[in-house]
Amino acid sequence: MSESEKIHLAKTSESEDLKKIRHTTSHVMAMAVQKLFPKAQVTIGPWIENGFYYDFDNPESFTEKDLKTIKKEMIKIINRKLPVTREEVTREDAHTRISAQNEPYKLEILEGLQEPITLYHLGDQWWDLCAGPHLENTGELDPKAIELESLAGAYWRGDEKKAQLQRIYGTAWQTPEQLDEYKRRKEEAQRRDHRKIGKEMGLFIFSEDVGPGLPLWTPKGTLLRSILEDYLKREQTKRGYLPVVTPHIAKVDLFKRSGHWQKYSEDMFPMMAESQEEKDKEIGFVMKPMNCPFHIQIYKSELRSYRELPMRLAEFGTVYRYEQSGELGGLTRVRGFTVDDSHLFVTPEQLDAEFMSVVELILSVFKSLQLTNFRARLSFRDPENPSKYLGSDDAWNKAENAIRNAVEKVDMAHFEGIGEAAFYGPKLDFIFQDALEREWQLGTVQVDYNLPDRFDLEYVAEDGTRKRPVMLHRAPFGSLERLIGILIEQYAGDFPTWLAPVQIRLLPVGDDFVQFAKDTAAAMQLLGIRAEVDLGGDRLGKLIRNAEKDKIPVMAVVGAKEIESNSLSIRTRAEGELGSIDIATVTDRLVKANATNGNF
Amino acid sequence: MSESEKIHLAKTSESEDLKKIRHTTSHVMAMAVQKLFPKAQVTIGPWIENGFYYDFDNPESFTEKDLKTIKKEMIKIINRKLPVTREEVTREDAHTRISAQNEPYKLEILEGLQEPITLYHLGDQWWDLCAGPHLENTGELDPKAIELESLAGAYWRGDEKKAQLQRIYGTAWQTPEQLDEYKRRKEEAQRRDHRKIGKEMGLFIFSEDVGPGLPLWTPKGTLLRSILEDYLKREQTKRGYLPVVTPHIAKVDLFKRSGHWQKYSEDMFPMMAESQEEKDKEIGFVMKPMNCPFHIQIYKSELRSYRELPMRLAEFGTVYRYEQSGELGGLTRVRGFTVDDSHLFVTPEQLDAEFMSVVELILSVFKSLQLTNFRARLSFRDPENPSKYLGSDDAWNKAENAIRNAVEKVDMAHFEGIGEAAFYGPKLDFIFQDALEREWQLGTVQVDYNLPDRFDLEYVAEDGTRKRPVMLHRAPFGSLERLIGILIEQYAGDFPTWLAPVQIRLLPVGDDFVQFAKDTAAAMQLLGIRAEVDLGGDRLGKLIRNAEKDKIPVMAVVGAKEIESNSLSIRTRAEGELGSIDIATVTDRLVKANATNGNF
Repeated sequence: MSESEKIHLAKTSESEDLKKIRHTTSHVMAMAVQKLFPKAQVTIGPWIENGFYYDFDNPESFTEKDLKTIKKEMIKIINRKLPVTREEVTREDAHTRISAQNEPYKLEILEGLQEPITLYHLGDQWWDLCAGPHLENTGELDPKAIELESLAGAYWRGDEKKAQLQRIYGTAWQTPEQLDEYKRRKEEAQRRDHRKIGKEMGLFIFSEDVGPGLPLWTPKGTLLRSILEDYLKREQTKRGYLPVVTPHIAKVDLFKRSGHWQKYSEDMFPMMAESQEEKDKEIGFVMKPMNCPFHIQIYKSELRSYRELPMRLAEFGTVYRYEQSGELGGLTRVRGFTVDDSHLFVTPEQLDAEFMSVVELILSVFKSLQLTNFRARLSFRDPENPSKYLGSDDAWNKAENAIRNAVEKVDMAHFEGIGEAAFYGPKLDFIFQDALEREWQLGTVQVDYNLPDRFDLEYVAEDGTRKRPVMLHRAPFGSLERLIGILIEQYAGDFPTWLAPVQIRLLPVGDDFVQFAKDTAAAMQLLGIRAEVDLGGDRLGKLIRNAEKDKIPVMAVVGAKEIESNSLSIRTRAEGELGSIDIATVTDRLVKANATNGNF
Repeated sequence: MSESEKIHLAKTSESEDLKKIRHTTSHVMAMAVQKLFPKAQVTIGPWIENGFYYDFDNPESFTEKDLKTIKKEMIKIINRKLPVTREEVTREDAHTRISAQNEPYKLEILEGLQEPITLYHLGDQWWDLCAGPHLENTGELDPKAIELESLAGAYWRGDEKKAQLQRIYGTAWQTPEQLDEYKRRKEEAQRRDHRKIGKEMGLFIFSEDVGPGLPLWTPKGTLLRSILEDYLKREQTKRGYLPVVTPHIAKVDLFKRSGHWQKYSEDMFPMMAESQEEKDKEIGFVMKPMNCPFHIQIYKSELRSYRELPMRLAEFGTVYRYEQSGELGGLTRVRGFTVDDSHLFVTPEQLDAEFMSVVELILSVFKSLQLTNFRARLSFRDPENPSKYLGSDDAWNKAENAIRNAVEKVDMAHFEGIGEAAFYGPKLDFIFQDALEREWQLGTVQVDYNLPDRFDLEYVAEDGTRKRPVMLHRAPFGSLERLIGILIEQYAGDFPTWLAPVQIRLLPVGDDFVQFAKDTAAAMQLLGIRAEVDLGGDRLGKLIRNAEKDKIPVMAVVGAKEIESNSLSIRTRAEGELGSIDIATVTDRLVKANATNGNF
């Protein structure tokens, strides 16, 4: 880890200092813009987590060159060390003063403001409506810690029927070192962008005619999915999970019974009805947003005995959720995704042990994926918004306590997330932080006393009475699509050897060596190694460049010398040239990487 | 094969004799009914493929006992050897005569009839409107070759808003031996019914809340699916197929481009639209009824070179078709099913060889499944109904000729099925006939010059020009659901050993032998054998009865004698007691069954 990575960059919401810096910088920017472009009218200018923006109405389009001019003007304002002063005014007073300025947007903003109405002044030259907080003087800003980043279009009130505005994004920090680190991370994030790398590696595509948020997996991406699925299936088989397969749709009735229709239908695709009349009567089918009600049908299809519990039904179940199209991006937010889902039906006595066993599985999955930096979030209901949830207080308390108890037993960083529960029960979510301090939600395990009630689930207990099982919902990956997106970003496409779709590429340096390379690859394939031969017939430099571009972990040059010594000249992405290694050793190391979920 | 199975039972449509016999028998039955139940009014009484029925309007419900009385009355009519005579009448004459009878349904039928209007008389005692043909005398019927089978409700004109009628089903044959064989097959079909066996074996369930035609696969059924899928995946990998994964939905636009929307939307689930307005504008999503347009998107996502062809994209793709709910039954007609789908993009020069290679794969799949009795149907378009199809005559002729040429090269029973083509191209369908002479459509391969045009598909040819590939659509199983339904019926649940979800069950005859049984099963599992131990603690007779009921191919009794000799007392479903066999041999035979797609 380089020196710079040790700098922690707070979010605006975490730091009062950053809030002041960014508020003040945005005012300085607006003052500079209005100085340079007297026709520009200001609208809103809030901070965002890594900076701020300001939206302007200006007759001409701002250019990248304008940003430089604006920045220069801002430096002048900073250097003038203008005091920033707060003034509380009456609504009438504010109205009079704004009207004198020809700032119609400000007037509209004023209408929506609650008392007290406050203005912030930069010296005596510029002011805006603002709730603060601010620095006390523009001189407290460090021009070397400020950057105007980009231009974008925006609409007044975010409404595309209203006036079109121009947005300037910027950022501001306490020190130039922080700004440098921020810029480095931004570049690094662009370099790691899974959409870009996914395209370069040829893992998945999107199609306009299929629709946004619906990835199609190419052969190479499908291979990556299979590697992950097969790995988890093996782990699950060891632990007594039972695979099932269920449909992607069901009648609305099923989701009424489960409560999804009442609490979750906004996230579901519109229903399929034969006519408006049937739609009004709610007769029709919907795509499943979750797999639970289907697994419950299988549980319910027979009278179960305590001897059958815990029953762990598992499915790589593809679900569909109607995310707003504006929110879709690459693989991390999609409309169709495959959950590595399982529902465990357990007796109340088995709950703690099964919960721990699920946590153990999730932790071992993260270890195999070489994801080490995560915390557990105890996602509980929001007591102030009870209408979001189903079920009795008693059921919720029992479930939340079960999660609390379990977490206390494991030595695991954790925090509470109020309002993050599912509508049917609380969750333990695993939040992973990547090299760029970005957070991603991965695996989840949920305790549910609620759906067993709604579906009237039972088992015959040892004493012959009918009892109610508890359900655990769990998914170590969460979503296969998201996971792959996150893994691409985390590794910047350099997958651990056991996960790489192609593990070794043999590079014959001439036609005479092609057959040997093919035979070697075929022998490796028989041992489950994903080996291929570059048949392009290019020169060595090009062969290596192509393999590097395709992020193949192990490259093996094959020429006369190698054939004679039954060896391969090995170069890895991670370590560069390793010199000549005999074929048996190369093969053993790859077999071992696969068996141990490791690297070459 | 028993003697009786050699009797061929023709369908009514294949035999003029049977048409006459069944027409006449149905008239004899109607005459008997009206004699015994003077208030009964006749409606329609057609032949069906294995018999006939007649619908009556009668104030009281017929009972099973009535069927016996009716049969006795029919025998009397037969024995009276009444001549059957045809009379051609004018519409007015028919109207007058019917009006005199108080037969309002007959009057309605008369309105729909074309000239000439013909009556058939039984002697001078009874007549009905009928187009014939008939026997010349009721005495030609053999009462021992006739059976009244069952009662059912029906609606006049099949319309549930119209009068409710009572239907009597019957059958009639040339000889009593044919009737006996027919009854034997009917019983056998009931015994083999995959819905019954599937339930007994616990392979799949249906749920009213999920909806009709949407099976949910239990752990055991899921295992069976995986065995079939894994088998085909291995065969496909050997042949250079590339797996892909695509969504279950797409925007309507995709299916407009493919032509499904224009030619196939009646078979598709209703669209998902946010509002009636969007629905009217056809803005929304639909579930995929086929996978082809998705695989085409992957093909199209890059400019392809001739070097990449043939490109064989393969997916176990679950599709959804909106079959009428009345037509749904078990697994053989469902609304959601998984196609072992592949689309091959080939150069025109590669077409013949790739077609043959697909046929070879399909034949090898049938051989592994031990399905031997099939014919190929050349499913061509119906030239009299051109609006059902897309594409130019030239494209159709080329595609139909490609299929004809291929079939001529293989020694394979075949026939033409006019009007059986897909809307985008002709097909070669494999029609399997089971032990009961029932026909089932299994694998298919289709030649398509049409979708490549519609999607403007290209590849860069060796000479650098852009050319159009040809597509092959193919599915050896057809639908995984149908296939499993058919296999259950064909084997009556007794799967070949390599396909059986549980291959061997160890039966310890006392608590002392349980650990040895568990260890033996675990050792077998490591070799990929699906072994389990019966832990029920029952006596041997019960253990064997349970294993027989569950249709486990190999049962292995474990007691003191077996442990001492490191052997198992083997009993198979197919051959009964085989005596003591040492464990290594049992294991070898099971491993070999798996490796060769064979039996123990």
